[in-house]
Amino acid sequence: MDQVTDRHDLEVLSLSECLTLLASRPLGRLAYVDRGVPHIVPVNHLVDGNTVIFRALHGAKTDALLLDRPVAFEVDDHDPSRAVGWSVLVHGTAHPVTDEESRRFAAELESWAAGTSMRHVIVRLVPDEVTGRRLKTPE
Amino acid sequence: MDQVTDRHDLEVLSLSECLTLLASRPLGRLAYVDRGVPHIVPVNHLVDGNTVIFRALHGAKTDALLLDRPVAFEVDDHDPSRAVGWSVLVHGTAHPVTDEESRRFAAELESWAAGTSMRHVIVRLVPDEVTGRRLKTPE
Repeated sequence: MDQVTDRHDLEVLSLSECLTLLASRPLGRLAYVDRGVPHIVPVNHLVDGNTVIFRALHGAKTDALLLDRPVAFEVDDHDPSRAVGWSVLVHGTAHPVTDEESRRFAAELESWAAGTSMRHVIVRLVPDEVTGRRLKTPE
Repeated sequence: MDQVTDRHDLEVLSLSECLTLLASRPLGRLAYVDRGVPHIVPVNHLVDGNTVIFRALHGAKTDALLLDRPVAFEVDDHDPSRAVGWSVLVHGTAHPVTDEESRRFAAELESWAAGTSMRHVIVRLVPDEVTGRRLKTPE
């Protein structure tokens, strides 16, 4: 089957491939905007259906910046020795989960900062868009 | 020596430690803002003094979003089996480098997408702020 490539000659991944790759790594990076300035934090995540579940630091400021506002989430992998890699980017809006879901996901989600005194909230990122690119291996 | 920790019990890294860790990895993630929406792209980078040099996709849209505007750059490492990791975040403004610097850095910087037809511009991120956190190993 022909691969689809973008104008930069990167292979365009299907939604199904993107979700599989997202689920294959425990850690991604969440970006949010505070007064026009972008911020990035590493977060542990899992994939639930077409949504991404992650832990975020809990606090009035974080809640105001993350919840019901546009965020981006990225997972990648890269092997410089072989010049291969991929990157999946999710754009969407984050919402808190129910208490019952929170208990269920907390058991599955390891924390980037396990063992620390950080307070967390469990959040569901509902995608507006999921895009992925893979470096084409040389033919 | 006592470690400095933040209110989440993460070890606060010094600027010198942050720059050493930034330089220890070839790949980071760049975040920029487009009409209030955050975007993340993986980029190869190197550290030059207190600044970060990276390749970005070259194009009128990318240039308008990246250059002379606030961006964030993050590098991390994480070992889930040992619950250890670190993350360094740079906030600042990106500027194009001179042609001479561009040639010099191009030789040192591998591209995330080596071998593709992507057009690149080499950019210097001048930090306003460099912050880093490390998970404390259990005592």
